Parts: sequence; C-alpha cells; structure tokens
Amino acid sequence: MGSWLFTLLIEVISFLRMTNQAPPKIRLYVPQPFAEGSSLTLTDGQSHYLAHVMRVREGMAVAVFNGIDGQWWADVTAVAKKSVTLELRHCMAAQRNTPDVWLAFAPIKNKTDLVIEKAVELGVSALLPVYTQHSVVKSINREKLLAHAIEAAEQCERHDVPAIEEHKDVSHLLAAWPKDRVLLYADESGSGENLKTLLPALPQGRFGILVGPEGGFSTEEHHILKLMPQVKAFGMGPRILRADTAAVAALACVQAWLGDWDIRPRFIAA
Amino acid sequence: MGSWLFTLLIEVISFLRMTNQAPPKIRLYVPQPFAEGSSLTLTDGQSHYLAHVMRVREGMAVAVFNGIDGQWWADVTAVAKKSVTLELRHCMAAQRNTPDVWLAFAPIKNKTDLVIEKAVELGVSALLPVYTQHSVVKSINREKLLAHAIEAAEQCERHDVPAIEEHKDVSHLLAAWPKDRVLLYADESGSGENLKTLLPALPQGRFGILVGPEGGFSTEEHHILKLMPQVKAFGMGPRILRADTAAVAALACVQAWLGDWDIRPRFIAA
Repeated sequence: MGSWLFTLLIEVISFLRMTNQAPPKIRLYVPQPFAEGSSLTLTDGQSHYLAHVMRVREGMAVAVFNGIDGQWWADVTAVAKKSVTLELRHCMAAQRNTPDVWLAFAPIKNKTDLVIEKAVELGVSALLPVYTQHSVVKSINREKLLAHAIEAAEQCERHDVPAIEEHKDVSHLLAAWPKDRVLLYADESGSGENLKTLLPALPQGRFGILVGPEGGFSTEEHHILKLMPQVKAFGMGPRILRADTAAVAALACVQAWLGDWDIRPRFIAA
Repeated sequence: MGSWLFTLLIEVISFLRMTNQAPPKIRLYVPQPFAEGSSLTLTDGQSHYLAHVMRVREGMAVAVFNGIDGQWWADVTAVAKKSVTLELRHCMAAQRNTPDVWLAFAPIKNKTDLVIEKAVELGVSALLPVYTQHSVVKSINREKLLAHAIEAAEQCERHDVPAIEEHKDVSHLLAAWPKDRVLLYADESGSGENLKTLLPALPQGRFGILVGPEGGFSTEEHHILKLMPQVKAFGMGPRILRADTAAVAALACVQAWLGDWDIRPRFIAA
C-alpha cells in the first residue's frame, strides 16, 4: 500500500514537472514518421549536438518536426556517449507549410550560405540553384547547402525544410518551368516593373523568383526570359544590388505581398 | 608648320581616346569640393588601393563622388609609390540622394557589417546603432562601420554615403525622435500590422525603421514604443527572423513601397 502511494506520488510529481516545463528551446528536424510514444533515431551529428553542445540530460525536452506532422514534444530518454534517444510525447502545433514560393538563384562565391539562410527564414518553399552564362560559380555542394537549410529551418520555427534542387543550367530550368507558376525575374537592365505596382496586381497562386549572378543575365538570357508567358520582369531601384542582396530583398517583398506575413508568430518573445 | 600639324594630331588622338573611353569601373568616395580641372587628394588607403590593388596607370579614369556634386569623371594624372593623383574632368551624373529612410538597429555579433552593407545598397539615408535592454553587443567600432558603408556605397552606384550616428541607448533615441518622422518598428511579439496593409496607407514623408536585437525588445521597451504617436508596429509573418534578416527584409519592403524603386538604374548591365 505504501509502495502504491509512493508510485502514485512519483507519477503526480512527474506529471506536474512535465506540464510545468517551458516549451523546449532546442528544435530538431527529424524526417521520420511521428507517433505518440515512439522513439526517434537521431543522426550522429544530432546526438553529438544534443549531448556535447547543448548538454541535454535525461528528462529534458526537445521540439521536433518532420515536415509533415507539425511540431512535436519529445523527451530525452537516454544520453549515451555516442547516441541520444528521444521519445515522442504529443503534437504541440499542427503542420503549417510555407507559401509556395521558389527561389532560383545563381550561387555566389562565399555568399551562397547567406542566401540559403535568409531564404529559409523568409519562408521559401524550394531553392533552385542555377548557373547562367555569366556565372562564376559552376558547382555547388548540395549536401552542405541542405545541412545549412535544415539548420536555418530549425532556428526559425518553420515546420518544413525547403527542397534544394539539383544545380542546373538556367536554360534547362526555364525550358521546364511550370505553365501555372508565375516567374518574377530580377531584371537588372532596368526594363522591369516596380514591385509596388507589380505584386499587388498578381492573383494568389504559385510563384518563383529568379535572380542572376554578379554579372547579370546575358542578352540571350534576357531575351529568352522576355519571351516566356509566365515571366514578369521587375526592377529594384536605381542602385546596383549585389546578387545576394537582390535575392533576399525580392523574396521579402514577395512574401510580404503574396505570402503568409499576415500570420502572426506563435511564440511571443517579450 | 610640321610641328604644329603634329601637335594638332596628338590633340585629336588624345581627344578621341578620351571620348572613346568606357565609363570608369572604379568608383571612389572623395569628400572634397569638386570643380573642373582641380586635383583631388586621396587618403593613403585610397592611393594604395588604386596603385597596388587596381593597378591603375596614368591616363586611366576613376569615377568619384563627394555626396553633394553627383558623380564625376577623374583622370589619373600621377601614380607614385605612396600617392595617386586624380584630376577632375566633368560631371557624369547629377547628384541623386537616397530616400529619407533611417535604419535604427541593435548591432549583432558578427553580423553588423552585413546589415551595414545591405542597408547601404538598399538605399538607407542614415544608420543609427542602438543598444537595448536585451542587447548583447554594447559597443561598436564606428570608424570601421563607416569604412564599410563607404565601400558599399562605392560599389552600388550611390552618390552619397549614409551617416552613421553614435551608438546610443534606444531610450535616448526614442526620447529625441523627430515628431514628423514615422517610426516603423519590427514588433516580434506578433501585435504589429502586416506591411502589405501598413505601407501603402502611409503618406510620402520621412521614415525610420527600428529592429531590435536577437532577444527582442523588453516589455518596457515595447510599452514605450506603443505610446509614441509617430510609431507604427509591424510584423513579418509566422517565422522567427534573425535580427539581421529582419532589418534587411523590412528595409527592402519600405524602399519598394515608399522609397525610390520606381527609378531605374543608370547603367544597363547586359
């Protein structure tokens, strides 16, 4: 009887501790099916991060998302030298996808990580690295860029990680561009429309943004773009923007006008 | 007679060479009065840059601006070991100032240079570093930031360099905020208005943007801001933006809607 009471007491304390716990500060992307009570297998990198960087202990909590099932609460159930085990508790927030906005961009030396990070935070749904006639960067490390996108998604409360497509020639991208997706392209030649008039006139739908490399698009590329019925050329004022600035600035304007910026953040910071 | 003809020939060749010259690719900020035929005194850093980095030679041209007189053509008239001499030829473009938009921001570790660079490109007219109750960065190197702003201005075809104000407590900034300048503040608590509805409703005028540090504003700071009649709080959607991303994204939207993005660039790149 004493032992039964003791067990109950432990359960009650444990329940109170759990419900009193602040929302987990650590967020991890774990692309596995989620179900209450099931365990998650972490990568070596994630285990190392939890055990040795964040120094988690048994009983602590981590928020996890898999891109499909929303954000879940997971308890740390074991911390070994090389692996950390998480057990799923309950769904904290239903899945919320980012707006359907792609960003096609010519990777820029030393600035590609920056574009990925900012684009993920600003809610891009897919990243499409391209090379153009004036591109300097002709190859990318896609695995590394994806790792960077995951890290940014974990830090910005997204429930999904944008796809990073294969690096391809812009002419191939344009040849296969979906008929029902508007392509907003940053026309550095000065013949594009002002975003202020262009964006509010577009109906809701699927969008893509295309930003060229440092040297701009070639005459031939401008010509091909102008012939496509899905294309809307836009300008961003009298100053010459770096390619990475142009990508971030254009995405911000598109998200503000056509994206989900009317939704408020879930956590109040102050 | 032969010598006279020869001199004329030299003059004609020299004139043709000059008029055939492509616009200078190098741009320098030289804050001195400009007048046709007068010489410019460069700093040691500028002389070193021209002579040893860009390897200019006598007869080559440099574009210069001083923040008042527009963009001028200057000829390199002497290249010595430690100094380069420029002589002003003619005004290439009349002065064009950036829109009157200030950016007040809490400097972020390792990201302040990035905010300066992007803000200058996006046409900010003044940068106002502040510290807030949650600020981690409490001091800045203003000289270094100004050097960074000058470099960005030289590269983006601006005719002016934004002022960089003294680093000050945000409460002092707000206490002295001009009555006729709208202050758009990034309210990460979620109670701000959507930029899409806020910006088009504002009349043309003087603006300022305020973006807080990583930890957001304190409850007290939010409270003070909400009491100011010049203040309009805005949100940027459901994701948590890093402070540097928020500053760049907000400035892009403000310039697109209230700034000078209806002006086209002067040079056509393609």
